[in-house]
Amino acid sequence: MKKLALLMIICGALLCLCLPSSLNSQQSSAGPASTSAIRAVLNEQQSAWNRGDVTAFMKGYWNSPALTFAGSSGITRGWEPVMMRYRKNYPDAAAMGHLDFSGIEIRPLGSDAALVLGRWHLQRGNDAPGGVFTLVFQRFPEGWLIIHDHTSADAKP
Amino acid sequence: MKKLALLMIICGALLCLCLPSSLNSQQSSAGPASTSAIRAVLNEQQSAWNRGDVTAFMKGYWNSPALTFAGSSGITRGWEPVMMRYRKNYPDAAAMGHLDFSGIEIRPLGSDAALVLGRWHLQRGNDAPGGVFTLVFQRFPEGWLIIHDHTSADAKP
Repeated sequence: MKKLALLMIICGALLCLCLPSSLNSQQSSAGPASTSAIRAVLNEQQSAWNRGDVTAFMKGYWNSPALTFAGSSGITRGWEPVMMRYRKNYPDAAAMGHLDFSGIEIRPLGSDAALVLGRWHLQRGNDAPGGVFTLVFQRFPEGWLIIHDHTSADAKP
Repeated sequence: MKKLALLMIICGALLCLCLPSSLNSQQSSAGPASTSAIRAVLNEQQSAWNRGDVTAFMKGYWNSPALTFAGSSGITRGWEPVMMRYRKNYPDAAAMGHLDFSGIEIRPLGSDAALVLGRWHLQRGNDAPGGVFTLVFQRFPEGWLIIHDHTSADAKP
């Protein structure tokens, strides 16, 4: 009986030593499910923009005063100010034009964050600006959201 | 005896359940040591730049073909091409000027990555350009290194 108990304790301890590391290795980076969740956020943003719905476009961003947006006008802080910036810079359908994202790359940063690079392109009546963006996504109970956006326009040739 | 063995198994199992989560919570975000290690990398980059040493400046970046640098000329990939870009855009001491970083903010992304925002400012003979940067740092066995840099210049007023 004593031997059996000892054996069970040793087995239990070994199981406990092995299980957490195998769980950790499964969760050590954002997997394919996270990648497709992030792509879905970006697709939804693109569709929202192209139907002129800035509020729906903003759903891809973390609704927090700690949200940051960096660009040629410095750093904008907070979900509300980021939305106001979009509304000011793109006041109507003509200014919003047709948005396309391309070349999306998703690099996991641990289990709950990801670095996303890509290109943006706006087709408008009078011009067709474009450039690159860096997004940092974070996993929240409600899903993957952008916590930081750095967007820049291509230099004029 | 049977009861003692059962008690030991239960205690062992409970310990095993609690230990990993307490270890994880200690490692769940980049702590003060990481923050000061990241600040040290940025301080070293600033000093290297200001003595005209681009090679030493580049030591802050991950020496990998997967390093990325985003800006108004799109995305540059790889440590070597990023260095060549710096050498081309800042060919001499006059072009390099005096670099200052300011407003550094470090936000941990799990235990092995961090998002860093800040402002850059160059004091040169004829102009004083500046702007914001987004850096993603990752922890490697050799220390914290930049795996992605998105730098933009302030719009001309």
